[in-house]
Amino acid sequence: MTTAYDYAHENFDKFMANLKEWLMIPSVSTDPAFKNNVRQAAEWLAADMHRMGLSNVEVMPTDGYPVVYGEYMGAGEAAPTILIYGHYDVQPAVIEDGWDSDPFKPVERDGLLYARGATDDKGQTMIQMKALESMLATGGCPVNLKYLIEGEEEIGSPNLAAFVEANKDKLAADLCLISDTAIVSVEQPALVYSLRGLVELEVVVTGPKMDLHSGGYGGIIHNPAQVIAEIVAQLHDAEGRVTVPGFYDDVLQLSDEEREQLAKVDFTDDEWQSIMGDLPEWGETAYSKIERVGARPTLEINGIGGGYVGEGLKTVLPARANAKISCRLVANQDPEKIMVQVRDYILSLAPKTAHVEVVEGHHGYPAFTPLDHPAMQAAARAYAQNWDNEVLYKRGGGSIPIVSDFQNLLDVPVVLLGFGLPDCQAHGPNESFNLEMYRKGIRTVIAFMHEIAAVEL
Amino acid sequence: MTTAYDYAHENFDKFMANLKEWLMIPSVSTDPAFKNNVRQAAEWLAADMHRMGLSNVEVMPTDGYPVVYGEYMGAGEAAPTILIYGHYDVQPAVIEDGWDSDPFKPVERDGLLYARGATDDKGQTMIQMKALESMLATGGCPVNLKYLIEGEEEIGSPNLAAFVEANKDKLAADLCLISDTAIVSVEQPALVYSLRGLVELEVVVTGPKMDLHSGGYGGIIHNPAQVIAEIVAQLHDAEGRVTVPGFYDDVLQLSDEEREQLAKVDFTDDEWQSIMGDLPEWGETAYSKIERVGARPTLEINGIGGGYVGEGLKTVLPARANAKISCRLVANQDPEKIMVQVRDYILSLAPKTAHVEVVEGHHGYPAFTPLDHPAMQAAARAYAQNWDNEVLYKRGGGSIPIVSDFQNLLDVPVVLLGFGLPDCQAHGPNESFNLEMYRKGIRTVIAFMHEIAAVEL
Repeated sequence: MTTAYDYAHENFDKFMANLKEWLMIPSVSTDPAFKNNVRQAAEWLAADMHRMGLSNVEVMPTDGYPVVYGEYMGAGEAAPTILIYGHYDVQPAVIEDGWDSDPFKPVERDGLLYARGATDDKGQTMIQMKALESMLATGGCPVNLKYLIEGEEEIGSPNLAAFVEANKDKLAADLCLISDTAIVSVEQPALVYSLRGLVELEVVVTGPKMDLHSGGYGGIIHNPAQVIAEIVAQLHDAEGRVTVPGFYDDVLQLSDEEREQLAKVDFTDDEWQSIMGDLPEWGETAYSKIERVGARPTLEINGIGGGYVGEGLKTVLPARANAKISCRLVANQDPEKIMVQVRDYILSLAPKTAHVEVVEGHHGYPAFTPLDHPAMQAAARAYAQNWDNEVLYKRGGGSIPIVSDFQNLLDVPVVLLGFGLPDCQAHGPNESFNLEMYRKGIRTVIAFMHEIAAVEL
Repeated sequence: MTTAYDYAHENFDKFMANLKEWLMIPSVSTDPAFKNNVRQAAEWLAADMHRMGLSNVEVMPTDGYPVVYGEYMGAGEAAPTILIYGHYDVQPAVIEDGWDSDPFKPVERDGLLYARGATDDKGQTMIQMKALESMLATGGCPVNLKYLIEGEEEIGSPNLAAFVEANKDKLAADLCLISDTAIVSVEQPALVYSLRGLVELEVVVTGPKMDLHSGGYGGIIHNPAQVIAEIVAQLHDAEGRVTVPGFYDDVLQLSDEEREQLAKVDFTDDEWQSIMGDLPEWGETAYSKIERVGARPTLEINGIGGGYVGEGLKTVLPARANAKISCRLVANQDPEKIMVQVRDYILSLAPKTAHVEVVEGHHGYPAFTPLDHPAMQAAARAYAQNWDNEVLYKRGGGSIPIVSDFQNLLDVPVVLLGFGLPDCQAHGPNESFNLEMYRKGIRTVIAFMHEIAAVEL
């Protein structure tokens, strides 16, 4: 009997051809000039879903680019249902940016497929599709699958939360699976089990009604550029801790097991040196670097400005200064609560001698799936069947808002089953997809479906 | 016998015609398109000096626009010699900037003469010339005069210090007299007896080798935008005093008489409100506002910058941040010494976790002529002969580098005998010269020459 693994192996050339065809459509969502191409990429995927036998295939409109939906419900009502997310839009790319070949004419070189979107995210989405195709051709899939492949990921998924909200019943699932991240290296699989939430705000300081001559007024006016510095300087203590009262109250503490796991993926000395040279690290020294980036909330100054900072000097006393601030939050922290805490603390620091305003920006929730969650363990076993090295567990320092959106709007755990590599140049020139990852990825997804069918979610 | 005063009165129409003729030459030094006009204005002045009987009239070359020189040495070797400074170049002006008439076609309306340069500084320079013309036509001047009228004041006098240095003997004098400032109002004469010196520097903080993703690295790197804020926040204490060690050591303290005089020219509540609304003042409260601006050294942040401060938010951890700083110095302070003090203090604040560099900029010396200096008192008496209101004494918060240059290079006291008015729009549209100031100015200069001849310098 032919297994899904056999089928995938035997049909790999066809799978490659399919992927290349899709990659040739320049579905650049960031540039309206490619509007028709983006839609064409959606139609192409819907046709492929039809061909392989998915049900209820639909190109569903949103206020922006459509969502491609399709489902396989053949595992029956008793089997779990998994929602698979991916995206068919890509970053801009022109050969002049430094590509060695046309970004929309995929070519293979030394085991890598070069094209825009090769890894991010057409290649990884194809892993998901081809795993199911292999299973359907060889007796079926043990779990039900719903595919939600969007076309606006590269512009920040502006319509996705509303789409999910409006289609909650249709998208109902037991688990969300996303292949849009990277593992450690081609030999080293890793599971990202945590992403940070985000709180964005701006502090605006105003003083005089207009820019003034610093000679004529310096010494009697609390200079807004100085005020913003005085406020920003009070947001951390000497040990690098954020001073906002209550900021750490709800933080989920690291378990011993996590700390042990994270120690295996901490920054190496070489990585550190390549970025910082001889400068020492900074921050909460009770935590390792990877722990601080992944498991501790932070408050970062993304920008500070006021007055004149160009060539030479202008003896101006500026009327206005500002700072852009973002906080990264970890599991259990509520961005709305943190926004209020940070805002109130900053306002409490405002001197009487200047106007200080806090402008609230976007916020997003942290995402977290415990290491010992059955779906996480199923994913680890699926990787383990295809890699020799033990699976590592990582916490991501960044934020992928869709992950927490799925977690919160659909109330499902999210597993990030990534098949990208750190050097795949996802948003740069010569983006590539490692063919080994395509092969192993398809096998790993097939394995995951069997593993997840066997556990209680 | 006709006095110089009578002559000035009888010839006022001619003096007006002369000034208008000169104002019609658009001697805009800031714009190379007016190069020939600037030279033409110099030649015009030299011809006028010739006509009225000055000796050794010369259009003297510099590396930029020439200096017009002329002298009257008829008072004899025993009489004091006064060096008179003025400038024949003007700020740019086009009618489209909001002028009610062509800026280079002088017109009189309601007692004001409208033209670019009307007050700054052709009008005030003409006061000096016409005072001498009136004296020469009626028996001579009791002191010797040397005129140095430059053509690069509006571009920062880049060649003047070198010119003065190279012509020290020729320019040797007992006193320098400058008519290029404003009094309080048409009814209220005032003497500016002090200007502040300047020290300019930039603080540059660098951390990572490139801008980083704040999610991926926030919490382990001492963010340069935070470091610059932490440094800037330590440059003043809670009472608004500059914290640089030794900063106030050499400051010439205010005398009781000065404080009494300055109290008469402090900012009014209306002035304050028009700039600051309801915000309270800031700084060294042991001193009045005018004292802080004129008699206290300050350290001002002219600019602070790092990362992204435009629309929205970029989650960047910037590689670099900077601050532009200027200190204003008062009498007895040495800018070179202060530069070292400020630089060393800032470097002492640098954390180990970032690179901090101090880039030294320009510096200039403070200028100060004591209230009781015989030349200052002679000027006060000259004003008093032509105004009903008691002369006020002001300290200027800004810096006019040429004043300290004359003071230091020629080792002479400087008297600022101003005839501008605060509302004359020196650098704006509809610059005007009050005809009453022209009349009274000529009389005041004549009076000053007699007063100065009678005192020991």
